[in-house]
Amino acid sequence: MNDALKTRLAELRDLQGLLNLATWDQETYMPRKAEAARAAQLSTLQGLYHERLTDPRVGEWMEREAPSSPDEIATLRVLRRERDRAVKVPSRLVKAIAEGQALALGAWRQAREQRAFSVFQPKLEALVALRREQADALGHDGERYDALLEGYEPGMRVARLTPVLRSLAQKLEPLIAGIEARPRRPDALAGKRFPVDAQWAFTMELLPAMGFDLEAGRQDRSIHPFSNGLAATDVRLTTRLFEEQPFSAIFGTLHEGGHGLYEQGFSPDDFRTPLAQAPSFGLHESQSRLWENLVGRSRPFWTCFFPKLAAHFPTQLADVSLDDFLASVNRVQRSFVRVEADEVTYNLHIALRYELELGLVRGTLEVRDVEAAWNQKTKALLGLEVTSPLEGVLQDIHWAWGEFGYFPTYTLGNLYGATLFAAARRALPSLEAELSRGQLLGLRDWLRENVHRRGARLDAEDLVRAVTGHGLRDDDFIESLKARY
Amino acid sequence: MNDALKTRLAELRDLQGLLNLATWDQETYMPRKAEAARAAQLSTLQGLYHERLTDPRVGEWMEREAPSSPDEIATLRVLRRERDRAVKVPSRLVKAIAEGQALALGAWRQAREQRAFSVFQPKLEALVALRREQADALGHDGERYDALLEGYEPGMRVARLTPVLRSLAQKLEPLIAGIEARPRRPDALAGKRFPVDAQWAFTMELLPAMGFDLEAGRQDRSIHPFSNGLAATDVRLTTRLFEEQPFSAIFGTLHEGGHGLYEQGFSPDDFRTPLAQAPSFGLHESQSRLWENLVGRSRPFWTCFFPKLAAHFPTQLADVSLDDFLASVNRVQRSFVRVEADEVTYNLHIALRYELELGLVRGTLEVRDVEAAWNQKTKALLGLEVTSPLEGVLQDIHWAWGEFGYFPTYTLGNLYGATLFAAARRALPSLEAELSRGQLLGLRDWLRENVHRRGARLDAEDLVRAVTGHGLRDDDFIESLKARY
Repeated sequence: MNDALKTRLAELRDLQGLLNLATWDQETYMPRKAEAARAAQLSTLQGLYHERLTDPRVGEWMEREAPSSPDEIATLRVLRRERDRAVKVPSRLVKAIAEGQALALGAWRQAREQRAFSVFQPKLEALVALRREQADALGHDGERYDALLEGYEPGMRVARLTPVLRSLAQKLEPLIAGIEARPRRPDALAGKRFPVDAQWAFTMELLPAMGFDLEAGRQDRSIHPFSNGLAATDVRLTTRLFEEQPFSAIFGTLHEGGHGLYEQGFSPDDFRTPLAQAPSFGLHESQSRLWENLVGRSRPFWTCFFPKLAAHFPTQLADVSLDDFLASVNRVQRSFVRVEADEVTYNLHIALRYELELGLVRGTLEVRDVEAAWNQKTKALLGLEVTSPLEGVLQDIHWAWGEFGYFPTYTLGNLYGATLFAAARRALPSLEAELSRGQLLGLRDWLRENVHRRGARLDAEDLVRAVTGHGLRDDDFIESLKARY
Repeated sequence: MNDALKTRLAELRDLQGLLNLATWDQETYMPRKAEAARAAQLSTLQGLYHERLTDPRVGEWMEREAPSSPDEIATLRVLRRERDRAVKVPSRLVKAIAEGQALALGAWRQAREQRAFSVFQPKLEALVALRREQADALGHDGERYDALLEGYEPGMRVARLTPVLRSLAQKLEPLIAGIEARPRRPDALAGKRFPVDAQWAFTMELLPAMGFDLEAGRQDRSIHPFSNGLAATDVRLTTRLFEEQPFSAIFGTLHEGGHGLYEQGFSPDDFRTPLAQAPSFGLHESQSRLWENLVGRSRPFWTCFFPKLAAHFPTQLADVSLDDFLASVNRVQRSFVRVEADEVTYNLHIALRYELELGLVRGTLEVRDVEAAWNQKTKALLGLEVTSPLEGVLQDIHWAWGEFGYFPTYTLGNLYGATLFAAARRALPSLEAELSRGQLLGLRDWLRENVHRRGARLDAEDLVRAVTGHGLRDDDFIESLKARY
């Protein structure tokens, strides 16, 4: 690859790393009054990134390339995909979307305060219109949503996704009914207080146990947990601590730790190249879901870690058995709010959002009708009557950010995660025994070898197929639920 | 001012803020293994900054300007000065200096391990040669050192500086002899332990008392204390905590807090312009020295704050009187190491370095002779016999960084600080009474009004003259020492 292009790619990765540093800092240590200054810094950095990516010389350098290795071919493919999208959207539209996002975010916050969707509606309408325009600028084969989905899940299409999500919802319904019909153990943790320092200490034991390298990353506290890879050697995680809800920190850390292992697992050879990234949001999410749910809610895992947790909370957990604890960890209950949903009902929340935003982007659903549609679907899918928009259409920040096409990646993460975990179990016959001894590195290494190290060389579904023999499907996920519930 | 130029200036400030964020993070929270990735990110960011500053279009925009206000004139003056320096040095030389610095830094570390200047010598020779070349590229009137000094202290010249430093050294000698001749109180704090958490808590009381806004800045721990302004609304300070040396944290916080007040004090109107900066390193240092020494080592200050400190250390300070404490705070003793020197002998360390580096840059002193010259001057100025290069020529990192012209700004800070403080006392007749009640905001406001808000509108000495009626001189500093010792 010619040096000028190589240097530019390295520069773009550095800028990405700095963007991640600036957003990490914004959510962790930045002083309150720095908001405006940080917004300016981020906007400058994003502008430079865009300018350096769309620079016509980059196009010329790419055309002159005669890639000589599979890695060079993959690098150019990843670069071309990102660059084409950046080039196709006129800067007028980029700017209008950024402004529309800022306005919508403000209106969404206000609407939540006033508990009135109508406050948010006009700004959301503007944003939907802009995103539709963007999708048309990006180009599609008649399915406008595909152009947006491509930004989160390259290669995925509505035609492929819809039947999978529909089938999943159909299979979940009887499963949930079955779980609900069974007698339910009382929550043994309810009403107890778990001092946050001890919660923190436990999560800081979990991370190295998972194989997360705390010399190449760190964990901090933030209001919303997230993970952020500044480089494979610099991965920042956050978690949050609530005295009465220890699961928030524990599963938050397992979740973000799963993301973090992905970021730390890129090959050192891919340092400062576009290959050192996940091929999609869905595949990234598969790693967080796998650790959070398939490992973190399993009996083998807690066979080892429940005593360790109890050492931090000797009085709180004195009269709690492993079975009690597992019942609390695996409680299933239909609820209004996605982020509080259990792993079984969670995907119904996604199905709801996917269908609505698909309608918005296609133009078959008007923004003014979206609240009624939301409430109707909540009734249909979850059997619940929405009484406040805070528990309904105003609960998520994603649409206020202008993110349409993002939600399905959560379910893709669940499905890919289950398919990958099933393959890991086949490949590692002693996995269950290892987990119950607290030995998580075998799994980490298998994931690193089969998923993380490959970086962006394959599209998500191609990678999952190469590793497991199966593409996107819900069988493994449903199996894993059936085995556990 | 034309919009393109204005936008570019804002962008350059944003990049500067991001550089400061990245270096702050590097010294505080960055994981150990991220070093190489961070070096790449910093180098990319510095390269972009340089490219956007030296961009020929910036020169064209500037030429087309017809500045219509004093602020526009000042802005263009500050920009032109920075840009001319950046343009004059060929990128080949910039690169060679960066490489020379990296090599010299490595050799300096190795030389310290082996306690042998000879290990450092060849790399230092290369760096001195490069800096001389750089100085010639920048241009000067025969005094090559002026071109380097200009990078830290715009407007200052050897011809102005040398007599002042020489006069100061002459006045300090009898002062030190006099102090040494007097009986010395034993150090009432020696051998005691001061838990670091309580030290931290005390420093976190000091900062708001000084008027440092903890919603527009923060304090963290680092190995070497520093301050870093990402924006006037985002100022990061660090301090360090040693159980047996509480003064390290206390005076570190006062010192960095002084720098921090400067950064927070820039006018909001100057946000994202080159005016929101100090005109020189020396004037910046005047603020840290003023708070650390002139306020922080004074009887009025401790009249209020000693009881507050004692509340944190009730047993350690139970049998310590205010007089004992002040004696400990104000101990004067000739020593080998600059960073451990008291405020009186400190300037002799600077005089020593200034004369040596002046010789190196002029070419009248060879690098191979610099160790002998160092030891000889230590004997002459401080009366001490150097026995290890760790306490001698290898003690400071500055030359390994290739910084020649930086050291004198420390003494300029002491002198400017004393002259400004003398003016503050004249302007605020009740200052001493306020300090002894712990009321520091009157002084903070006076400094903000007279120094900080002006930003880079005037050169350092011009600003000091405008505020105090006096330019660079040692009288106020010597007076302040005489009054205290």
